[in-house]
Amino acid sequence: MPSAPSSAPLESYHTQHSPFGAFASFTLGLVDSPGGFGHALRGPAQQNLYIGFRPSTKSDWNLLPYFTPPKSNEVAFVGELAVPQAPKNYRSLRPGDYDRQLGWASDTWRAGDDRFTFSLLTPFSRVPDPAKLTAADARLHLAPLVSGFIEYDNRQGKTPAELIFGLGEPDRGLHPLSDDASPLAGFACGTEYAYATKPGRGIELRQGFDVFSPKFRDYRGLLVIGGETALVFTVPAGQKKRFPLVLAFYNAGQITTGLPASYAYTRHFSGLPDVLAHGLKNHARYAKIARDRDAELTRSRLNVDQQFLLAQSTHSYFGNTQLLWHRGKPLWVVNEGEYRMMNTFDLTVDHVFFELEWLPWAVRDTLDLFVRRYGYTDRIRTADRLAPGGLAFTHDMGVMNHFTPPGRSSYECDDVEGCFSHMTMEQLLNWILTAVTYAEKTGDRPWLVRKKKILLACAESLRRRDHPDPKKRDGILKHDSSRTGTHGWEITTYDSLDVSLGQARNNLYLAVKTLGAWVLLENAFARLGLKKESTSARATSDLLARSITQKFDPATGFFPAVFEKGNQSRIIPLIEGLVYPLYLGYRDAIDPAGRFAPLFDQFRQHLAQVFKRGICLDETSGGWKMSSTSRNTWFSKIAISQHVIRQLFPETLSPEALAADRVHADWQRRPGCGAFAMCDQILSDTGVVCGSRYYPRGVTAWLWLLEK
Amino acid sequence: MPSAPSSAPLESYHTQHSPFGAFASFTLGLVDSPGGFGHALRGPAQQNLYIGFRPSTKSDWNLLPYFTPPKSNEVAFVGELAVPQAPKNYRSLRPGDYDRQLGWASDTWRAGDDRFTFSLLTPFSRVPDPAKLTAADARLHLAPLVSGFIEYDNRQGKTPAELIFGLGEPDRGLHPLSDDASPLAGFACGTEYAYATKPGRGIELRQGFDVFSPKFRDYRGLLVIGGETALVFTVPAGQKKRFPLVLAFYNAGQITTGLPASYAYTRHFSGLPDVLAHGLKNHARYAKIARDRDAELTRSRLNVDQQFLLAQSTHSYFGNTQLLWHRGKPLWVVNEGEYRMMNTFDLTVDHVFFELEWLPWAVRDTLDLFVRRYGYTDRIRTADRLAPGGLAFTHDMGVMNHFTPPGRSSYECDDVEGCFSHMTMEQLLNWILTAVTYAEKTGDRPWLVRKKKILLACAESLRRRDHPDPKKRDGILKHDSSRTGTHGWEITTYDSLDVSLGQARNNLYLAVKTLGAWVLLENAFARLGLKKESTSARATSDLLARSITQKFDPATGFFPAVFEKGNQSRIIPLIEGLVYPLYLGYRDAIDPAGRFAPLFDQFRQHLAQVFKRGICLDETSGGWKMSSTSRNTWFSKIAISQHVIRQLFPETLSPEALAADRVHADWQRRPGCGAFAMCDQILSDTGVVCGSRYYPRGVTAWLWLLEK
Repeated sequence: MPSAPSSAPLESYHTQHSPFGAFASFTLGLVDSPGGFGHALRGPAQQNLYIGFRPSTKSDWNLLPYFTPPKSNEVAFVGELAVPQAPKNYRSLRPGDYDRQLGWASDTWRAGDDRFTFSLLTPFSRVPDPAKLTAADARLHLAPLVSGFIEYDNRQGKTPAELIFGLGEPDRGLHPLSDDASPLAGFACGTEYAYATKPGRGIELRQGFDVFSPKFRDYRGLLVIGGETALVFTVPAGQKKRFPLVLAFYNAGQITTGLPASYAYTRHFSGLPDVLAHGLKNHARYAKIARDRDAELTRSRLNVDQQFLLAQSTHSYFGNTQLLWHRGKPLWVVNEGEYRMMNTFDLTVDHVFFELEWLPWAVRDTLDLFVRRYGYTDRIRTADRLAPGGLAFTHDMGVMNHFTPPGRSSYECDDVEGCFSHMTMEQLLNWILTAVTYAEKTGDRPWLVRKKKILLACAESLRRRDHPDPKKRDGILKHDSSRTGTHGWEITTYDSLDVSLGQARNNLYLAVKTLGAWVLLENAFARLGLKKESTSARATSDLLARSITQKFDPATGFFPAVFEKGNQSRIIPLIEGLVYPLYLGYRDAIDPAGRFAPLFDQFRQHLAQVFKRGICLDETSGGWKMSSTSRNTWFSKIAISQHVIRQLFPETLSPEALAADRVHADWQRRPGCGAFAMCDQILSDTGVVCGSRYYPRGVTAWLWLLEK
Repeated sequence: MPSAPSSAPLESYHTQHSPFGAFASFTLGLVDSPGGFGHALRGPAQQNLYIGFRPSTKSDWNLLPYFTPPKSNEVAFVGELAVPQAPKNYRSLRPGDYDRQLGWASDTWRAGDDRFTFSLLTPFSRVPDPAKLTAADARLHLAPLVSGFIEYDNRQGKTPAELIFGLGEPDRGLHPLSDDASPLAGFACGTEYAYATKPGRGIELRQGFDVFSPKFRDYRGLLVIGGETALVFTVPAGQKKRFPLVLAFYNAGQITTGLPASYAYTRHFSGLPDVLAHGLKNHARYAKIARDRDAELTRSRLNVDQQFLLAQSTHSYFGNTQLLWHRGKPLWVVNEGEYRMMNTFDLTVDHVFFELEWLPWAVRDTLDLFVRRYGYTDRIRTADRLAPGGLAFTHDMGVMNHFTPPGRSSYECDDVEGCFSHMTMEQLLNWILTAVTYAEKTGDRPWLVRKKKILLACAESLRRRDHPDPKKRDGILKHDSSRTGTHGWEITTYDSLDVSLGQARNNLYLAVKTLGAWVLLENAFARLGLKKESTSARATSDLLARSITQKFDPATGFFPAVFEKGNQSRIIPLIEGLVYPLYLGYRDAIDPAGRFAPLFDQFRQHLAQVFKRGICLDETSGGWKMSSTSRNTWFSKIAISQHVIRQLFPETLSPEALAADRVHADWQRRPGCGAFAMCDQILSDTGVVCGSRYYPRGVTAWLWLLEK
């Protein structure tokens, strides 16, 4: 995939390189910044990385700029007896000195007239249900490792060249793998992470205060108290050599509290030496998978900016995945980036498209856990009483490896108007939409049958939230859950974006999402042979569509974002709820001339007006703004809206709206977001992240690959 | 124990509060600095601690100054929707506002006209051999916890007062203990650490972005995504209440590499809830032990500065202790402060006096492990050849929870002149001195018998290092081990202090230490019935004493520190080697008028001259300098020399030398050292640490309690 064009300013961004389900990342890429191995962190680790080459042993090292200037820790030992010198014989390559290409499952750097190549591979493939994996497949899919290689083409060289891959971690210290009875060449940090290559001629281990010019060497050439470690590879004159690398993670024992669970991979790997040996043995196999993924993206219709956005998003998604094992069964978690909330339902519903392609069982398992542990029944607050409510689900299942008690999230508080309130209606919709999308896409009919009662309860719960009196219902949520306390109000997933998107009652975005839910229920009930319920759902969606139609303001040609208090915010994601029928191919619901034609016509009018600078295109940057009244905009949600609009309302996209992929990609590949790998909440004028760092949700861009 | 007198400047120092053998500390005490729970760290943790009181719920909180101003992390969640306020309704007490008293096993703060009391208790007692502990005793001695209480005397109050004990850790997050099925009131961070009190009326849990004025509360009054946690206690008007606290650590699974081992306490405790419950159940028992230890120190003859130094040292010693379990047996490690080298022999030999009182089996086990795994046989480098050497031992057993391979340390390098070279002779002496001191003090005759061959090999090794030709021997080390490579030289434990103390060959300090070793060997061989060997050892020590005598320079009245190259450094620890016969009460060896009278007379002349400003009292501070030519001085070694000199050469101590306890204590209780709890390597002019932070070795001051 081509890198940013030469007209772009500084490209400098971290990327998470992560195994599947290990909640671990090897992060690097931000210029002049450290990174490295991290378990369950909210952002990049802080290890110096020494990755580079020198054409001869007399030249200075050329290093990719992924470190802060190393200091020798010698002084802590020698006091005033010497003035330790910081390492000197290296230079930090500037972005103009190297080329970086981020693929879907790779990240590759070239420098020194392309003689030097360094690549990290994060192959991913369709993962079978972990509950049914064979032992061999489990090792293949669950290996907690990142693959890679380092290469030098010295065919024209007159002297031996050298390559280096190293890491500085003075706080923890590493040790040579040979001390773990491993035959491999490399280093481990405790039992938690390690890097290695195959041993052989021309491969040297270094450890000490300075890996470039080691001053102190013990019987095997190392100084184990030194916090700097490296592998140094010699490439003889006249040869081209590529050396495999494996980066391994391991975290044994109890990982989570609340529900005590351990990593699934610990059932299949005994520890770091086992993981490393497996990685080197299967190096070619993993490289092939990575190449296949890369090629799929490159061959797609996506433009280079879109390709970059999906690649960067996929990397961060896997960095947040966590496959645990609890009482003999898999326990799936996607962590929420810097917040590290667990299985946040707002994310589950957005990840569904990607996950149904690559790991559909994860969607099912998460839905089941929401039913089993994180469902609840509330009442609804009317003007004069608490009326019967219904089934709903929590916002999340916990935070930072802690599962909250049954029926309770880590996030939702009482008596709050705004952020940290409950998202009862939103999560009810999320269960319906995710469940039906899963069942319809995978054809898992038995599962749908088992969930019949839940779906019926969800439909009833939806209705009651509209109005206790069936005669007064119009399909739109108008009441708050009793969980919000005496004066709080329900919020939506867009809690922190803008009041126009935050309030759940009389909310445009939520109303159309409700429409999507009823359309899916209609189909699910039909599939289950529940004709009456299906008909009733269809009637409700027709009613709701008409109700929304009436909120349109012909004078302005816009929908207000909230049907209250004269709100005049203009929002893009009013059509977000259409993505589910679109994804499932429910033609009658997505036909612009079909049953919702009047509503679609209004959507078209609305959208045709928003893609202007100062409305929903940022005045300064031209990037998409989810709301005209907020400069906080969310990439993952832009991606969904782009997909829906390109598929259903392509004529509303102004040339500037179409050109914004470049803007969105630049946000991510410059330090404003790039310091935290994939970021979701971004200030649309500056392109600087304002929340949701190190975030998994960008994989909504996967939808783009489905476009014709 | 009284605190520093009012004339002293700012008292501000961290203290490690540590369980026995858990390599863990709850550190606090440096003004305006965080601290808290740390496992295996090289310095204080970085958690904000909220410990204080307010006389009414309308007053601001008065907090001990052990935090940086808390910031609300709300902004990461709400973006620009709100401007989150940092907590405001508190004030940070200034050192003049509170009184702190560090006891041997306690650390107590009083404020608010003594109405407020906070105390941490680290009871320690004689620990029986872990290999033979009953299950009940194991739980008592190995519980990985720190005890404490918080109290308010509101008998004169008109309104309810409140107490707070809390902790901020946004990087990791904590969760309420009730989620771990614990009946206690408190919080845990994963499975790794926790704090708790007994639940009851007037005890409230707080968690969120601001524990002083929580803005968001869930169904149980918390916000689990918030990184700030606290227990808030209400003390009704007219009452005085004391609430128990327990701080617990837990680290499951494999802890070390090289030799894979886990914590011994994991065999007796199932996890944090178990540790906490045990701590609260046995709170009174632990408090009694702490009071007993405190009283022993207070009742001693030590002056207040000496008491402080021993108390602070003992706290850091326990913070570095680590009782592991390996293949069904205990595995004892003392870690080396910031360097975290394991069982560094230079420290073992200095800890021996303290450990023989409190945990004598630890000395034995460490000696055994040095024989079993960390002994080696070298050759010695003469001018023209490699001559037979002998048995010796490594400098350490590994670093940062990694055991190095058999026969190898983490520190010693080849071909080095100075720091990081081998310490062959030093460690050989250390084994002899530690072994005989252990066996003689404990009367463990069977062990001594089992080690007969080792002792004989040690004696032979000592002789060969003097000279390959027995006829040319004078008792002084004159050759370097083949391990030092082709041109390196052996160093002593004083490697980083001064060249005058660093070089092993012809070294005054090492020569007298060798004398001590021969005296101990003489006695050990006699005890073993090896008359010939005993006689021979006695002859060697007589020869050596005469040889040292000849190095004295009558012109100056000094010994040179190194018998080479016209060295003119004056050192205090020339008499360090006498501590062993002194400790064991070998009267003939320590009688100033006895067999070594000429030598002792020269020692006396030397010492009588060094305790002057500009020689071995620092020109600026008046503190003891180990060498006249280095401003790097080591507290743990000062303590040994003070003991030996007060017992054997008291007349040499100038009034200024005697007054220096205050100087040495001030070094430790001011931020120059206090930022890292007990420090060993200190710049004698400024009192600022220059190495060996967070260090265990200050327990050499234990020797002071033996003085009559």
